[in-house]
Amino acid sequence: MKKPYFYIIGLGPTPKHVSYQAIEILSEKCDSVFYEEYTSIPSEGDLSYIEEMIKKKATKLNRRDLEDLSGEIIIRSLREGRNTCLVTWGDPLIATTHISIITRVVHEEFKYRYIPGINSVSVALAASGLMIYRIGKIATITYPREGVISEYPYLVLRENLSRNLHTIFLLDIDSEKNIYMNAREAIKILLDLEKRFGEGIFSSKSLVLVVNIANNIMICGGEANYVLENPPNNYPQILVVPAKLYFTEEEYLRELGLLNNRCIYI
Amino acid sequence: MKKPYFYIIGLGPTPKHVSYQAIEILSEKCDSVFYEEYTSIPSEGDLSYIEEMIKKKATKLNRRDLEDLSGEIIIRSLREGRNTCLVTWGDPLIATTHISIITRVVHEEFKYRYIPGINSVSVALAASGLMIYRIGKIATITYPREGVISEYPYLVLRENLSRNLHTIFLLDIDSEKNIYMNAREAIKILLDLEKRFGEGIFSSKSLVLVVNIANNIMICGGEANYVLENPPNNYPQILVVPAKLYFTEEEYLRELGLLNNRCIYI
Repeated sequence: MKKPYFYIIGLGPTPKHVSYQAIEILSEKCDSVFYEEYTSIPSEGDLSYIEEMIKKKATKLNRRDLEDLSGEIIIRSLREGRNTCLVTWGDPLIATTHISIITRVVHEEFKYRYIPGINSVSVALAASGLMIYRIGKIATITYPREGVISEYPYLVLRENLSRNLHTIFLLDIDSEKNIYMNAREAIKILLDLEKRFGEGIFSSKSLVLVVNIANNIMICGGEANYVLENPPNNYPQILVVPAKLYFTEEEYLRELGLLNNRCIYI
Repeated sequence: MKKPYFYIIGLGPTPKHVSYQAIEILSEKCDSVFYEEYTSIPSEGDLSYIEEMIKKKATKLNRRDLEDLSGEIIIRSLREGRNTCLVTWGDPLIATTHISIITRVVHEEFKYRYIPGINSVSVALAASGLMIYRIGKIATITYPREGVISEYPYLVLRENLSRNLHTIFLLDIDSEKNIYMNAREAIKILLDLEKRFGEGIFSSKSLVLVVNIANNIMICGGEANYVLENPPNNYPQILVVPAKLYFTEEEYLRELGLLNNRCIYI
């Protein structure tokens, strides 16, 4: 029996961002199609759009299937000789979960192919007009767990700013409970941490950018205060806290009005 | 007269990576299509594939048109009331040139839309199984200019390693002269800089990964020496120098044989 392939396939942030390569593989190669929406959700549209394009139905997996049960359902499908595809929004290999599944698939001597998708983190950076050479560490701002706020985002911001690097914050998502952190909540957490540390690295006057990647990309820019008072209501959102701007970055943000409390679609 | 739009459109690394959104905009919205291939080249295929899909011909612009002449040809087209599109490989906003053009377009009160493309830097990271939270500063390794080797890549590597962060190196490209640095040349430059600095951060035994993103993604992994002796010959290449691996990262690379001098397609 020919060894079947495991394809891990990224769709990008929304169905319109899907690549021709992804649709070709889904149409021609996949005997079984699984998908998950707990590591990332589309900001617009849903999987039915893709299912219609590829004329196949996909089976939804949840965190338990992929993490607690280590993707057993995928391995079983491969053992039955079926080319098996796992579809995710964004880019699949940004999540550690998927790296672990591939490790298992390869360990069991199945082959794998990676089909990349447009990745929201790089789009958020690009849409902000910030230079890729100036990104610092990326971090996620999470909801308090058992009443405890993680200090990690503050530490990352401090380190990045001390090196004059921009910070990209992913915001907490629990799509199974339908909970998505918005930039307002994230900013409140950073302000709370600022109160605790008192190092003066983030305030309600700090420049922030909030990016939502749908078919049209929305950016809000201005003082943290502006976002606190005018929270955008589309999801998921990415929060960017720029370091000191390089002149090309500043010109871009100024021309777009994003230094001065504004939301626009680009 | 209705103000025309400027669309800046990313195709991704090759024509197969193009998104449905990009093709839709190119087909339906663009009165004039320009493209450039000096900031990035496709590793496979060319623009004729896209031109056939959209049933339009694109006009090639070079560095002079976009930088020395500040994109005058684009502004002229917009002033004539035409929706004007600039197409690039990869993601267009990764390059500072394009940020400057948008700044000018917006300053002249035209509207702009950004259509993202799959970005090779994030694909190289993802394909390497490395965590997005652990990327350090990104740098480009350049050919000596007038006999002088830039020390910057070494300084970035040193800083990233001291923080236990992975380093992604873009390699010099001069597509107008048809010159693309390969990983072998890049490693030689790092080894030369190591000799100069003598700090012991990079040697011929260091683990490196080389990624080429074509329709199938190629990764070579192992000691720097292995790549010196077996240089891959596809372009463009991205060189990754990992920090100390996290255990999920190590497992992934070990299962794929990439800790142990091997080139594979994934």
